[in-house]
Amino acid sequence: MSNIRHALNTKREDDFSAWYQEVISAADMAEDSGVRGCMVIKPWGYGIWERIQRLMDDRIKAAGVQNCYFPIFIPLANFEREAEHVEGFAKEMAVVTHHRLISDGKGGLMPDPEAKLEEPLVVRPTSETIIGDAMARWVQSWRDLPLLTNQWANVVRWEMRTRMFLRTSEFLWQEGHTAHENREQALEETHRALEMYRACAEEDMALPVIAGEKPENERFPGAVETWSIEAMMQDGKALQAGTSHYLGTNFAHAAGIKYQDREGTEQFCHTTSWGVSTRMIGGVIMTHGDDDGLRVPPRISPQQIVILPMLREKPEDEELLAYCEEVRASLAAQSACGEPIRVLLDKRPGKAAGKRWDWVRKGAPIIVEVGPRDMEGGKVAVLRRDRLWNSENGKPDFAFTPRDEFSSQAAAMLEEIQQGMFEQARERRDANITRGVGSLDEIAAFYDGSTKYPGWIEVQWSKPTGDALDKVVEKLKAHKLTFRNVPRDAEPADGTCIFTGEPAVERILVAKAY
Amino acid sequence: MSNIRHALNTKREDDFSAWYQEVISAADMAEDSGVRGCMVIKPWGYGIWERIQRLMDDRIKAAGVQNCYFPIFIPLANFEREAEHVEGFAKEMAVVTHHRLISDGKGGLMPDPEAKLEEPLVVRPTSETIIGDAMARWVQSWRDLPLLTNQWANVVRWEMRTRMFLRTSEFLWQEGHTAHENREQALEETHRALEMYRACAEEDMALPVIAGEKPENERFPGAVETWSIEAMMQDGKALQAGTSHYLGTNFAHAAGIKYQDREGTEQFCHTTSWGVSTRMIGGVIMTHGDDDGLRVPPRISPQQIVILPMLREKPEDEELLAYCEEVRASLAAQSACGEPIRVLLDKRPGKAAGKRWDWVRKGAPIIVEVGPRDMEGGKVAVLRRDRLWNSENGKPDFAFTPRDEFSSQAAAMLEEIQQGMFEQARERRDANITRGVGSLDEIAAFYDGSTKYPGWIEVQWSKPTGDALDKVVEKLKAHKLTFRNVPRDAEPADGTCIFTGEPAVERILVAKAY
Repeated sequence: MSNIRHALNTKREDDFSAWYQEVISAADMAEDSGVRGCMVIKPWGYGIWERIQRLMDDRIKAAGVQNCYFPIFIPLANFEREAEHVEGFAKEMAVVTHHRLISDGKGGLMPDPEAKLEEPLVVRPTSETIIGDAMARWVQSWRDLPLLTNQWANVVRWEMRTRMFLRTSEFLWQEGHTAHENREQALEETHRALEMYRACAEEDMALPVIAGEKPENERFPGAVETWSIEAMMQDGKALQAGTSHYLGTNFAHAAGIKYQDREGTEQFCHTTSWGVSTRMIGGVIMTHGDDDGLRVPPRISPQQIVILPMLREKPEDEELLAYCEEVRASLAAQSACGEPIRVLLDKRPGKAAGKRWDWVRKGAPIIVEVGPRDMEGGKVAVLRRDRLWNSENGKPDFAFTPRDEFSSQAAAMLEEIQQGMFEQARERRDANITRGVGSLDEIAAFYDGSTKYPGWIEVQWSKPTGDALDKVVEKLKAHKLTFRNVPRDAEPADGTCIFTGEPAVERILVAKAY
Repeated sequence: MSNIRHALNTKREDDFSAWYQEVISAADMAEDSGVRGCMVIKPWGYGIWERIQRLMDDRIKAAGVQNCYFPIFIPLANFEREAEHVEGFAKEMAVVTHHRLISDGKGGLMPDPEAKLEEPLVVRPTSETIIGDAMARWVQSWRDLPLLTNQWANVVRWEMRTRMFLRTSEFLWQEGHTAHENREQALEETHRALEMYRACAEEDMALPVIAGEKPENERFPGAVETWSIEAMMQDGKALQAGTSHYLGTNFAHAAGIKYQDREGTEQFCHTTSWGVSTRMIGGVIMTHGDDDGLRVPPRISPQQIVILPMLREKPEDEELLAYCEEVRASLAAQSACGEPIRVLLDKRPGKAAGKRWDWVRKGAPIIVEVGPRDMEGGKVAVLRRDRLWNSENGKPDFAFTPRDEFSSQAAAMLEEIQQGMFEQARERRDANITRGVGSLDEIAAFYDGSTKYPGWIEVQWSKPTGDALDKVVEKLKAHKLTFRNVPRDAEPADGTCIFTGEPAVERILVAKAY
């Protein structure tokens, strides 16, 4: 069998950024669209998104949150009335000013000056303000609360530097928006969403994450508390993979979301919002990809098992295809990770070995090759994407297995791959969080370039605010470092703040980040 | 039990348009957003859309079409290079001209004059041109064909007069786009999509439709052939519920979608596009609604059975809820129409009779009420939304049924409701297509207002083109009439064209339309 080691030109250790772009291209996930900052998500990339959507949506619905759809356009006035929000957000956005095109008299088109909008419309960068308007209409009494809504939508943030999946002008996401009677209930929802994201990241995407609260300087504009899940990429950088915000009554004041409480008194609602996006896919690539391409965790893989018949464009092919179809059907009739196994019989013309590398690059969890001799012996050749190479002979590590035996093992194998990918990522993550760094100078030394992918540092701090915090943030920024979050499950503080020298009150993560 | 006949203020026969708006509001499906021409789709309306999406997406995937996602923004140049397309489409569209907002110095915001785009971007009204660009990159050889793509997306067409679901500036849809080697294969795909739409409309939405070809004047701009499915609303008007276009090589020439054929010669691809939208939901309302509200066909109903316990806010409620939960679980464990039954135990506070009317207005197919006496007798009270009223006593027609008996009948009952709704709509549709009208004057007389909801007319015609067709279209327009389509399954022509007096070549439908 063919033995092309490393299906990619670039290795992670040589140039992680170039490797990332190459994986996206080699796995045929997405490409530049030619429209500024926007990408085309191709079937394999979109298929992964559909899986993430399906699994996340099940969790959202199970929590009693109802899906709605709100307008893509937001009037300027909505941004104007929430000053803090404007300051943080209302800058780089796509602005619609005209509603008609006409000929420019030179063979081209132009916006019709006669069709200028009285009030420009913004293409939503996020929907707090427009959903706030709806909540103000929908909520009158405490009986209407909690109000739990979510939408799956595209949003646009005009980005100057873009990178596929990680930062694009248009991206796809879900945004949950909820209204509650009081702080306690809103905080409970903030944490429910955060925990849902943790579970979805870890159980579905096999991405180990650290859930925690963002420091003041990293809060969503208008939020009272911002919580995040942070994942470590293989280059040691952090990826914020989802956020959940407790918004206090800030947006309720701006939009007039009020209710009569049980005593008949008018109160402002406490609201939350929470979102994850196609950025998650970037996290999957940078966590699970290797020097042969992508590896997709089985639960979110559009195809979990791909069967490749060794076709020879001869009459015998028919019998081989029938055999493969039997294998396919017997696998498709089974469940793994709680759903029917997704199995594809790839009948495209071309050599099996060539197609194999397509699927290795795409990261299908299990590849099954079947040649005439396998068929005669009632066998299949099974290749696991997570154990691609035989360490002794350096060849693809096929296991020649009786078809019935493979069929009875396949579900367990997929679950083992899922779990193994998570464990591998978690071990790497845990091995790359450094504790005990005692000063900002030591932090700077840690990231001086002598270690290529240095990972994260967890430090104790006194939780400075305002100017004091800004000063620390500036110093970190000089080393391209940021605060990630205060881990929810960290040990209590027991030392001194390395920034202020005051007694520490909690632990916080420091890292380079996407 | 409570006996409020007619849950709505407006009857269909009095004011169909006001009735339509009232159903949307009474069933809590959608509302105006306050943003020009855009609606908010609320959970019940969006839940129906999610069902339609799921069922349609299954059909799309089964046909080997792959979902992708393309940018929401389309550069002006894409519209400019396809002149015929510009003529027809590039008029009322949302145009993005700036990428930043700044303070206007008066406490408000404005587009930043420094951040004007060099080339304005159009918010996609449909995606032929941007997907054409991708196809040109993706197709090189006949081996890359057919290329079968679809996207689920929002699109914007700046509408002057809007009506919820039927015509809104922003709407949700799917758009399939495919490229083929030749005319035959592209036409085959055009008809596959049309047939998929017919099946989805009839089998999933219980909407009887007539599939046929649009006359020349109703073609999609840039199409060589446009096919549609047309549904008859209860006011006799037609609703175009889906379209499938054979685009010839028009868009391929504009975008440069070329391939090397089997002989090595460069050829232009033949492309198709096809779409259905949230408009379908308007069709469901106007086909199945009655004077008590909406009726949702079981296959697309977010909840198929709703259980209402008669709670009294007393300790006995607990036992009643446990009984209802058992009923719920036994139903949820079963399948109807090929999927697990979707059943909701509505535990909200409030009287069962009050909540009953909420669900009648929403159109849940089966409502089950359970009081303490029903529980004692091991029974449930079953109300079918399609047979709400007892014709003898004028009361809601509850069937008091042993719970096990109901449980064993529920799946069959849902299938019967689905089928019955389709049959009822088909009979009404068939009874309201008039044939044998012999002249334009007779058509005018038919629609003179003496019959409130006159339905459609099928006439024979000689298929005039160009100016001759325009003249006929103008005359029909004077009576607010349009050509719908030439039914695929109509009898062959055997008479004279009522417009031109020439020998007829086919039959065509004439109707008022949405």
